[in-house]
Amino acid sequence: MSVTAAQGFEAAAVTAGLKASGGLDLALVVNRGPLTSAAAVFTTNRALANPVIWSKQVIADGVVSAIVLNSGGANCFTGGTGFQTTHATAEAVSEALEVSAGDVLVCSTGLIGEQLPLQKVLDGVATAASGLGDHGDAASEAIMTTDSKPKRSVHTGDGWILGGMAKGAGMLAPGLATMLVVITTDAVLDSTQLDTALREATRLSFDRLDSDGCMSTNDQVSLLASGASGVTPDLDDFTAALTALCVDLAQQLQSDAEGASHDIAIRVVGAASDDDAVEVGRSVARNNLFKAAVFGNDPNWGRVLAAIGTTQAEFDPYDVDVSINGVLICRQGAPYRPRDEVDLTPRAVDLLIDLRVGEASATILTNDLTHDYVHENSAYSS
Amino acid sequence: MSVTAAQGFEAAAVTAGLKASGGLDLALVVNRGPLTSAAAVFTTNRALANPVIWSKQVIADGVVSAIVLNSGGANCFTGGTGFQTTHATAEAVSEALEVSAGDVLVCSTGLIGEQLPLQKVLDGVATAASGLGDHGDAASEAIMTTDSKPKRSVHTGDGWILGGMAKGAGMLAPGLATMLVVITTDAVLDSTQLDTALREATRLSFDRLDSDGCMSTNDQVSLLASGASGVTPDLDDFTAALTALCVDLAQQLQSDAEGASHDIAIRVVGAASDDDAVEVGRSVARNNLFKAAVFGNDPNWGRVLAAIGTTQAEFDPYDVDVSINGVLICRQGAPYRPRDEVDLTPRAVDLLIDLRVGEASATILTNDLTHDYVHENSAYSS
Repeated sequence: MSVTAAQGFEAAAVTAGLKASGGLDLALVVNRGPLTSAAAVFTTNRALANPVIWSKQVIADGVVSAIVLNSGGANCFTGGTGFQTTHATAEAVSEALEVSAGDVLVCSTGLIGEQLPLQKVLDGVATAASGLGDHGDAASEAIMTTDSKPKRSVHTGDGWILGGMAKGAGMLAPGLATMLVVITTDAVLDSTQLDTALREATRLSFDRLDSDGCMSTNDQVSLLASGASGVTPDLDDFTAALTALCVDLAQQLQSDAEGASHDIAIRVVGAASDDDAVEVGRSVARNNLFKAAVFGNDPNWGRVLAAIGTTQAEFDPYDVDVSINGVLICRQGAPYRPRDEVDLTPRAVDLLIDLRVGEASATILTNDLTHDYVHENSAYSS
Repeated sequence: MSVTAAQGFEAAAVTAGLKASGGLDLALVVNRGPLTSAAAVFTTNRALANPVIWSKQVIADGVVSAIVLNSGGANCFTGGTGFQTTHATAEAVSEALEVSAGDVLVCSTGLIGEQLPLQKVLDGVATAASGLGDHGDAASEAIMTTDSKPKRSVHTGDGWILGGMAKGAGMLAPGLATMLVVITTDAVLDSTQLDTALREATRLSFDRLDSDGCMSTNDQVSLLASGASGVTPDLDDFTAALTALCVDLAQQLQSDAEGASHDIAIRVVGAASDDDAVEVGRSVARNNLFKAAVFGNDPNWGRVLAAIGTTQAEFDPYDVDVSINGVLICRQGAPYRPRDEVDLTPRAVDLLIDLRVGEASATILTNDLTHDYVHENSAYSS
């Protein structure tokens, strides 16, 4: 179901011939209204792909009628020709659906620095537009690149529905591979309300997923509301539901991260501030030595403390506690329980860092550094 | 020769029993004078190993009579007991050599979070002190951990000599594994002159080696002067020679980095400032996706531009040129020469990034991300 779970939305997925594998590679999601309110957040990378440059203009007025997404090419660093391809794609959707091209979001994912085959994209759009229906599942497959499975989530509220799809294995900023997310709802909400809810939800979900510290040029999370349910939810309730849905999608991205063999939740507690907790969690999430140790089932807490030492967060290296999978292996910066009490064979790893200076906390999701990660990212040009 | 190439220095290396391998694991370097001036720079990690905490106190007055180094244990996050081990080690050197313990630098490298066996260290110091001589080569072997070979460099000036040894594969801040460097000279220079020269030399050498972005808790670079040559060099000449020697040692560290199959020189030119050039080079050096691509002999310049996009450096993503091994593969942010013209089979990789906004430049040295890197750092608890 994903993006077609909520009333007022139709989707289609086609094989436009962009992917070498020959699978579905172009998805179209249309908002039939009555509302066409929308919000979106984008990569913070300063090198922006053409579809991101385009979509930032589209979202400015908070009105979106459709979103077209392709895999098989990122359309990034493709110069003026690449931007024309994005523009022509939106125009093709505009003609087929009789909506304004300025209300069509465009997303692309795949190899950077190669032109998309324009005619194949345009033909794909035409085919998709003629096959719209309850095809949210197929749409979630068409946006996959190295994903091993589609990511979908649906939440049923009090008279309204949220549904979403995601691809990639990373985060908004940074991301391992491009992360594309489309979420739809039939709740009655305006674009300002959607923007507020989406920024809060992504801050606590995709922004705290840091698989390998590499930020994509194409990341985009879009939220479209049709108002077709006729129900206006309490904004706090809606935001909470949206956050839970985004966390669910983020966890699906984490568990399908390229080559990973462990899903690591880094829980930082006792921090002086939320920012400190996030900075500490992120520094550990980006430490290759710690991530390689987890791959080797080695509870190497010294690498955790060495990573914390690179931050500006408030802490005393000799008053930090570290637990791995429930075993207090480091107490106040010194060895405590024996290493061999820690069982790292399960895929899920719980790393608890207590800075012991305050009350703030944050959880960052990451993965281990594995042979398969190196293999996929050396063999797959993306 | 390394640290005993210059007049006035003696060294010894012994097997104290700290390393599981049973090899040389403790080195002692003694300055017989007439001068005992010295300078040192340390890791910028906020979590400091006990020998670093000790050595920072020792260097404060610019006087160093001896330096004792051990492999087989980092003595980091070992609490009060660990600091007492460092202190007792310096006291043992003091007694054996009849120098002040406050003039003895201590360096340790190996696993974090484990206590060193104190008695073995003390016995090792006594044995080393009784076997001092022209043993710079053996000393350079005793400080090795995952190093496959010792790193040594000697420079002969106009009547004076510089000699040095290094271990590890990383940089002062950050470092893949602990980096320890000891450099000796018989030039007549005071500690202030040595400090000025050493900071300039490390800024342009070890500080620009970034193998995997992970900063050690134990990094230390020490420079000792005996004045035994009786020659006072021009400080600029000395600094230039010291810089060249440090670059030589840094390149040896790079080419022996754990598991690496490519040595990558990232040359950033056309930058608005030195800081911008270093920031851009470092962002690329820390991008796992680019480093994995190099391992796979894939000239993936899109990942280079995506990494640059995460910096605050002045640049226009659509006016950047990228050349790999002499092939201009990206011109003004768009594809230029075909990818298959780039030959990435040689170990040495030359990545040239022209930001086209100014005149500043910097070169950062790094390595690729390989299966062997993951293997060594998952299987070896360090």
